[in-house]
Amino acid sequence: MSEDPSKVVRIGLLGRGTVGGAFAEMVEARADAVEAATGRRPEISGVLTREDGDFSAILERSDLIVELIGGTDPARRYVLDALRAKRPVVTANKQLLAQHGEELFDVAREAGVQLRFEAAVAGVIPIVRVIQESFGVTEIAKVFGIVNGTTNFILTEMASSGAPYDEVLARAQQLGYAEADPTADVSGADAAAKMAILARLAFHTPVTLDEVFYEGIERIEPGDLAYAKELGLSLKLLGVAERREGGVSVRVFPCFLYGGHPLSPVEGPFNAVMVEAPDITEVTLSGPGAGGLQTASAVLGDVVSILSGDAPVHETREKLPIVTDVASSFYLHLAVADRPGVLAQIAQVLGDEDVSVKSVVQRGVDEDARLVMVVHECLESRFAAALEAIDRLDVLRSPPRSIRVIEEEFI
Amino acid sequence: MSEDPSKVVRIGLLGRGTVGGAFAEMVEARADAVEAATGRRPEISGVLTREDGDFSAILERSDLIVELIGGTDPARRYVLDALRAKRPVVTANKQLLAQHGEELFDVAREAGVQLRFEAAVAGVIPIVRVIQESFGVTEIAKVFGIVNGTTNFILTEMASSGAPYDEVLARAQQLGYAEADPTADVSGADAAAKMAILARLAFHTPVTLDEVFYEGIERIEPGDLAYAKELGLSLKLLGVAERREGGVSVRVFPCFLYGGHPLSPVEGPFNAVMVEAPDITEVTLSGPGAGGLQTASAVLGDVVSILSGDAPVHETREKLPIVTDVASSFYLHLAVADRPGVLAQIAQVLGDEDVSVKSVVQRGVDEDARLVMVVHECLESRFAAALEAIDRLDVLRSPPRSIRVIEEEFI
Repeated sequence: MSEDPSKVVRIGLLGRGTVGGAFAEMVEARADAVEAATGRRPEISGVLTREDGDFSAILERSDLIVELIGGTDPARRYVLDALRAKRPVVTANKQLLAQHGEELFDVAREAGVQLRFEAAVAGVIPIVRVIQESFGVTEIAKVFGIVNGTTNFILTEMASSGAPYDEVLARAQQLGYAEADPTADVSGADAAAKMAILARLAFHTPVTLDEVFYEGIERIEPGDLAYAKELGLSLKLLGVAERREGGVSVRVFPCFLYGGHPLSPVEGPFNAVMVEAPDITEVTLSGPGAGGLQTASAVLGDVVSILSGDAPVHETREKLPIVTDVASSFYLHLAVADRPGVLAQIAQVLGDEDVSVKSVVQRGVDEDARLVMVVHECLESRFAAALEAIDRLDVLRSPPRSIRVIEEEFI
Repeated sequence: MSEDPSKVVRIGLLGRGTVGGAFAEMVEARADAVEAATGRRPEISGVLTREDGDFSAILERSDLIVELIGGTDPARRYVLDALRAKRPVVTANKQLLAQHGEELFDVAREAGVQLRFEAAVAGVIPIVRVIQESFGVTEIAKVFGIVNGTTNFILTEMASSGAPYDEVLARAQQLGYAEADPTADVSGADAAAKMAILARLAFHTPVTLDEVFYEGIERIEPGDLAYAKELGLSLKLLGVAERREGGVSVRVFPCFLYGGHPLSPVEGPFNAVMVEAPDITEVTLSGPGAGGLQTASAVLGDVVSILSGDAPVHETREKLPIVTDVASSFYLHLAVADRPGVLAQIAQVLGDEDVSVKSVVQRGVDEDARLVMVVHECLESRFAAALEAIDRLDVLRSPPRSIRVIEEEFI
């Protein structure tokens, strides 16, 4: 369409893996649409890979930098250099943002250029834009959801097949839903980085990865999922960022959800994020969590936004403390001796720590006797203390098992 | 905070009903946050109601106009005057946009000012922003969903209580979920206006209200919902805008959804919209469809966006025809004579019109014999012809009943 060089926007592309390759193709395929929407026609002006290319030379001949190499180094240096040279940057790099976000935001603000990163969280689900722009002046109370597709795929498979964790993980690896080294996903670390980013945006306060508590799915057993079914629950790896007691709590953990919960039906490699605020009640966004094409599409959306105008400045409005001991509801599974008075003994220990029981079911007899309980919301430190005390009781045949539960019924 | 008059943005407010009142309060409550996000502090510079105020005087002392009076007249004149006077406008007026959108977009483009309308569609769900900005250069194939909370509330209640339409409508009116004159909602006309707007944005082609086919829920009977349950279906009033055969089809109709469909669990007054495109697979947004606070929040989000920078220009990229005869799948309910050969006779008529049967169940005997069928996707004109032919058969005890079905299983 356009032959006028002043209408061209030159994009320097760092990285040419799955997403980088898909992005380069998409720039060509959508050039007419981008020009129609923004008046400027995109062109890839240079590609830097680990093996090939000179960053300074690419920066020199680019109007905008797209960073898709991943990792914090040298990505951090490249992004900082680009911003200081007054080039807007689009990145999909969650580790970079979760660990060095404040530094990048400061430099972008000083340079007066945009830094966008929709693709860093929840793939093509536009949660970054929605939190920053639609709800940019809304007093968000809570952002939570399923932000890791690998673990959601594994939990869905475990629930439907009854197969153990290791077996399902191997299947996920075969199908390409889990990497050869799955640690970052299954440990909750990947979700933690995403939640650090979302918390920072939602609450306008600095949050870094090392302030996020996380717990993975490696220790989930088929029995947990079988009980869940009996109780009408589904098990998800949840990321939760919320205002709590004058501060902010940001955590990732496996969690049971009641059947009516809007996140319950989110299965397989899908992601979903909910935003809660008094003004908006709640809004849920869901969709595929990853995929080269989907991620590239989110990156291109950011490029278009940069070409269309100004952006949020990631200002810090207040410095909120990170709250670590919060109230939660728990599922509790105890293998107990099958004799009178056992429940009373356990209830006593729970009561001593102000933990109150919502429901309890006894399963099995004799050597297979088990108590499956759900307790009401209580401070996690108190629940941990109760658990320790229960573990010391001689009526237990094995250590107690506990998993958090979202207790509220959905309106 | 700010005492510097150059930092103030003066907002002229047209209308002070439920939403207008909530918006005025929110502007005051969120002034600090708006100033932090945009560098400008909002103030209401004047309020026009049906009884009070002078539009020209308010326009004169405003930097930005928020139109919340509703209806097409005098709202259209006010918005046009404001845009021509180079004042950006935020409106929640779906009728105005669905009927006069092109005129408004043209004038806004000429004047070089923004016109924003997130609150016109699906309440606080940021579907307008997501389609325009996140997916602004994505080749969207289909936008569909539940965009009317009143009808979704009525259908949910009918399904759970088994009560007839009139009774549930009266209950909805008592609870404030339906208006005294519910025609616009229950006829599908309200949803049609919203779908005209979404289709225009998704496909970059002019679509006006009179080009949207719509069918309401007034004729839904408890029996339809009872059968739906038996077949594992739920009934929703769907708005569907999609590319079909080189054009665009935009329609609103009651429709059965299979249990696994992502819109199935959307109940009560909630809304949900799905966007499908090859690049993104699919993304779903859901949340409360209305409410004064929620709508005011969407309006304020638009104000912040205007203060933050440029916006999409609603350019027409191509003029696509509106397609009316599309392929659909149907549920078909026939009260038939209970004698051999009846099914063969009906299957013959369907086959003559290339309509193929997916499933069929016989219910009742003798004077109560009924056939409940689901047919595969077929051209609607062919199905209508088959229906007419079936209606002429002497084996039918009453006219056939049919409702569209979303046939694809969700991946």
